[in-house]
Amino acid sequence: MQRKSLTSDECPIARSLDRVGEWWSILIMRDALQGLRRFDEFSRSLGIAPNMLTRRLTALVEAGMLERRVYSERPPRYEYVPTARGEDFRMVLMSLVAFGNRHYAEEGASVQVVERETGQPLQPMLVSGEGRVVPLEHCMLQAGPAASAGMRQRLGSIPQ
Amino acid sequence: MQRKSLTSDECPIARSLDRVGEWWSILIMRDALQGLRRFDEFSRSLGIAPNMLTRRLTALVEAGMLERRVYSERPPRYEYVPTARGEDFRMVLMSLVAFGNRHYAEEGASVQVVERETGQPLQPMLVSGEGRVVPLEHCMLQAGPAASAGMRQRLGSIPQ
Repeated sequence: MQRKSLTSDECPIARSLDRVGEWWSILIMRDALQGLRRFDEFSRSLGIAPNMLTRRLTALVEAGMLERRVYSERPPRYEYVPTARGEDFRMVLMSLVAFGNRHYAEEGASVQVVERETGQPLQPMLVSGEGRVVPLEHCMLQAGPAASAGMRQRLGSIPQ
Repeated sequence: MQRKSLTSDECPIARSLDRVGEWWSILIMRDALQGLRRFDEFSRSLGIAPNMLTRRLTALVEAGMLERRVYSERPPRYEYVPTARGEDFRMVLMSLVAFGNRHYAEEGASVQVVERETGQPLQPMLVSGEGRVVPLEHCMLQAGPAASAGMRQRLGSIPQ
């Protein structure tokens, strides 16, 4: 997808979306992180056209989110396993679960994020290095060490 | 977008993506939550075609993420302001910032999430009701009160 703006190229949101922002890719990662592995499993779960599924799986392997492994030599068959990077995408998905439950589940939650051991419901929050929870309205975006002049200006000029 | 699977319709991730999963929509919400308001501001920031921008802004208003307000009667001009629901999307964006910084910022972070008052860097984590931080690998998805039989079976049959 084409982006022309000065600062989008260095935005971590835009970069992530470039790699995994496609709608199907996110649902494939959801399924892979829930334990689905094989083409037929994804296909059945998602009701996605085979050529589209092939394309998205290949893109996720290229993005370093999934690893392709042979599980049968004859006929050649592959399974797709989340990499460490793919595992780390779980936090984004959990944020989407929480958001979807709060805003698009009028009849109540169908899926909940809980602690495995205690069954306690969990919410995504922003946490400091020492483990202090910081309310969302107290957070802001700030230019990082690799920010360009354009990005610094952009972040500096915005009331947050 | 067509989804045929039994359980996708009740998945909170799929529902959220249905409403705001389009690539441009997420970047528009990023900009709106950073304080951009007007058509020209979004247009300049994103380098997006005007008809596409109009379509995505309308979809975000329909999804209850942005509110359209008149700021000039003659000529008629509108600005787009995040609703409470749109504000709540911030957590999803912050998760994408953190993910993008960890995985797609080889030269270092251009943007960081920090606490406004202290400047301390923040990370998205899962937190229990009493404010206890729970490592991502200790979390799981479980069927909620509104889960269908299909969803219960699906979540129950998956090793997590």
